[in-house]
Amino acid sequence: MTSQIKYLLDETHLPKAWYNLAADLPVPLPPVLHPGTKLPIGPADLEPLFPMALIEQEVSTVREIEIPEPVRAVYRQWRPSPLFRARRLEQLLDTPARIYYKYEGVSPSGSHKPNTAVPQAFYNREAGIRKLTTETGAGQWGSSLAFAGSLFGIEVQVFMVRVSYDQKPYRRALMETYGARCIASPSPETHAGRTILASQPNHPGSLGIAISEAVEVAAQRADTKYALGSVLNHVLLHQTVVGQEALAQLELADDYPDILVGCTGGGSNFAGLAFPFLGVQLRGGRKVRVIAVEPAACPSLTRGKYAYDFGDTGHLTPLVKMHTLGSTFTPPGFHAGGLRYHGMAPLVSHLAELGLIEARAYHQLRCFEAGVQFARAEGILPAPEANHAVRGAIDEALRCKEEGVSRAILVNLCGHGHFDMQAYMDYFAGKLRDLSYEESELAMALAGLPSV
Amino acid sequence: MTSQIKYLLDETHLPKAWYNLAADLPVPLPPVLHPGTKLPIGPADLEPLFPMALIEQEVSTVREIEIPEPVRAVYRQWRPSPLFRARRLEQLLDTPARIYYKYEGVSPSGSHKPNTAVPQAFYNREAGIRKLTTETGAGQWGSSLAFAGSLFGIEVQVFMVRVSYDQKPYRRALMETYGARCIASPSPETHAGRTILASQPNHPGSLGIAISEAVEVAAQRADTKYALGSVLNHVLLHQTVVGQEALAQLELADDYPDILVGCTGGGSNFAGLAFPFLGVQLRGGRKVRVIAVEPAACPSLTRGKYAYDFGDTGHLTPLVKMHTLGSTFTPPGFHAGGLRYHGMAPLVSHLAELGLIEARAYHQLRCFEAGVQFARAEGILPAPEANHAVRGAIDEALRCKEEGVSRAILVNLCGHGHFDMQAYMDYFAGKLRDLSYEESELAMALAGLPSV
Repeated sequence: MTSQIKYLLDETHLPKAWYNLAADLPVPLPPVLHPGTKLPIGPADLEPLFPMALIEQEVSTVREIEIPEPVRAVYRQWRPSPLFRARRLEQLLDTPARIYYKYEGVSPSGSHKPNTAVPQAFYNREAGIRKLTTETGAGQWGSSLAFAGSLFGIEVQVFMVRVSYDQKPYRRALMETYGARCIASPSPETHAGRTILASQPNHPGSLGIAISEAVEVAAQRADTKYALGSVLNHVLLHQTVVGQEALAQLELADDYPDILVGCTGGGSNFAGLAFPFLGVQLRGGRKVRVIAVEPAACPSLTRGKYAYDFGDTGHLTPLVKMHTLGSTFTPPGFHAGGLRYHGMAPLVSHLAELGLIEARAYHQLRCFEAGVQFARAEGILPAPEANHAVRGAIDEALRCKEEGVSRAILVNLCGHGHFDMQAYMDYFAGKLRDLSYEESELAMALAGLPSV
Repeated sequence: MTSQIKYLLDETHLPKAWYNLAADLPVPLPPVLHPGTKLPIGPADLEPLFPMALIEQEVSTVREIEIPEPVRAVYRQWRPSPLFRARRLEQLLDTPARIYYKYEGVSPSGSHKPNTAVPQAFYNREAGIRKLTTETGAGQWGSSLAFAGSLFGIEVQVFMVRVSYDQKPYRRALMETYGARCIASPSPETHAGRTILASQPNHPGSLGIAISEAVEVAAQRADTKYALGSVLNHVLLHQTVVGQEALAQLELADDYPDILVGCTGGGSNFAGLAFPFLGVQLRGGRKVRVIAVEPAACPSLTRGKYAYDFGDTGHLTPLVKMHTLGSTFTPPGFHAGGLRYHGMAPLVSHLAELGLIEARAYHQLRCFEAGVQFARAEGILPAPEANHAVRGAIDEALRCKEEGVSRAILVNLCGHGHFDMQAYMDYFAGKLRDLSYEESELAMALAGLPSV
């Protein structure tokens, strides 16, 4: 039997600094605007929501930002995470491609999210903050912040999209085990929630609404701040430990990726893997083709406008320039809750505009098919979000086979699917379906976006 | 913040051989008897069920049994597994104890079970076997054998205790994702199953019944064998990679355990950790206090008879000498399905008789309490089975505090609880309860066992 190869780094190779792509961008990121004045905001405008250390990271153009030792101490529980050469999958596909995957499911909550949850909890505690509010969709982010909060003694309040709250009680139970409080959103606890419930008592919720609720609660109290699990610059920054480790691990493998693949919802796991490699390229080093894979049912990068928009439905956040389907876009209930966000991280959107990355959208059935193929070959069951990246990697590997070319493909396997078995059951039972062409186009038309 | 310490070994420290405790036993293990003749059985008697390589391991007294390279190649995906010093838990308990845990939840199926599933699948494939049958309770074993089967191209058929089949659809979905077929037991597919269904169409099933069904199917076809996830000598042997790694990791920590703690259902994860340390002791090295923790609702070691008994309810297996509650004992439906077996591994039972290990039983509520405490301190959510071991370790750590003594405690954290969130939800909702004294004594009396 062909066997996998694992590239493991010891703790001395845990990165000492996060890599800040802003230092190497050929064109700076468009500024964040105040929704009232439409003028660039300053750090003080963000202070009700975030501690100053994170605001500084949000706007920094310094290339390396030191990771505080208490954060590294927590990272060491599961980092450096393993990099695998997927030789069993390669054999199954009969491809000359060399497929590598970085596996982030080894964290306590089973995904890449603690990479940023831990420093966010740390900086907030350093600033004397006692409580963090946040939103969550599938629950990967909420459970990761709950984990981080439990370590640093910070109370965590999670607004969970109601449809997920009802359908995913086990993710909620994990948050509660870590000591967090989890509330179905829209909730009666906020003005934003009450307004929606007044007209639609059974509203299924959305990430945009849950963000409005979490922001509203955080803005009201000096000892309470808000934490976001993706989209923002500092969140993407924290994820760059992933790509930095992968660079070192591929050196051990004496290889370098021709192609990088990540799935994108808000963009953080994708950025975490890709930014350090793009940095090498932007500083004159080796080039890499970078592919962002998103769900066809929520195609912000491939179908959205590149425009200033709100991060939330209640329009409480500043305006950021990003690929967006519109802040009131409600994606259909497909089984990758972590990818159901109307916008894309400004940094990732900017890279797409600069032509430094490409994007593609997949319907979910082919992603589950890829996930099952991956699980049977590699033993690890990917989360539905990660299945999108796996699909992208498999398609590139099959292209290598067609063309008779051996390329190195590196994919970010951002989480395991142990909390997503209902999705796999629905897939096997034939209950999952893809949006039809007509449904997709109708959704785009309703969002004011052009058809294809 | 106090931080954990992780002791990681690189792949060169992956054990090259399993450690066979039989080589160092001061008194040999009582023989396995033929149920008809009551005489010791020979290898040929086991041939309908197991390939000869495993039968040889079952009876071997050679100290080191080489791990085949294809098995090591698969082990390398997650092994050597990490050993942690639980300094955050120590701080929370304010104990002078040094608590270490070996974490087996890093395997693809989330528990220690693949340590034996992989070699069992390997040896069967080497023997030309095309199909394996097995039983599973909570599903950790079934999903691990399904994983191993998918790697070696062996069809896997799992008889899952009906009550678990109905209550734990997600474990079933994991098995099916790996390509296994999962059947609720008792089933109409076997004589053993049909006999029970004829009189009790809604029988909830038991491990003893599921074993009967799996054995019956395996015995009928030359290309089909049976695989067991615990109890047998060769299964315990395969788990000794755990303790061997822990020995090397504690050397890195410049420490040695005063106390070892593991949970026991059939006994395999406990044995995997303890046997290598007991071997050191039996060869004249340092002594260690070894504590087996079992559920008070299925107390084979603390309340069972030490006697020859069947491994299954249908009496298809040979007779083994073990601590047993009787082959027809049906444990109540507490939330640690992996510990609901009427007997205890003959090797573990033998050690208890020789006074080389001690045993204690805990009711489930205090185990969940310990598990939640552990999750909040260490970030890892233990499986309900592992909570028993965690409870034992915490109690020993609290005793250290009372006595003002610093002892090193090593516990086997045999699996994560990501598939067991319903149990945690029930615990938080106050729906779990312990057996009363009267209920426990009634169960013992019905099993023909003395009261306390």
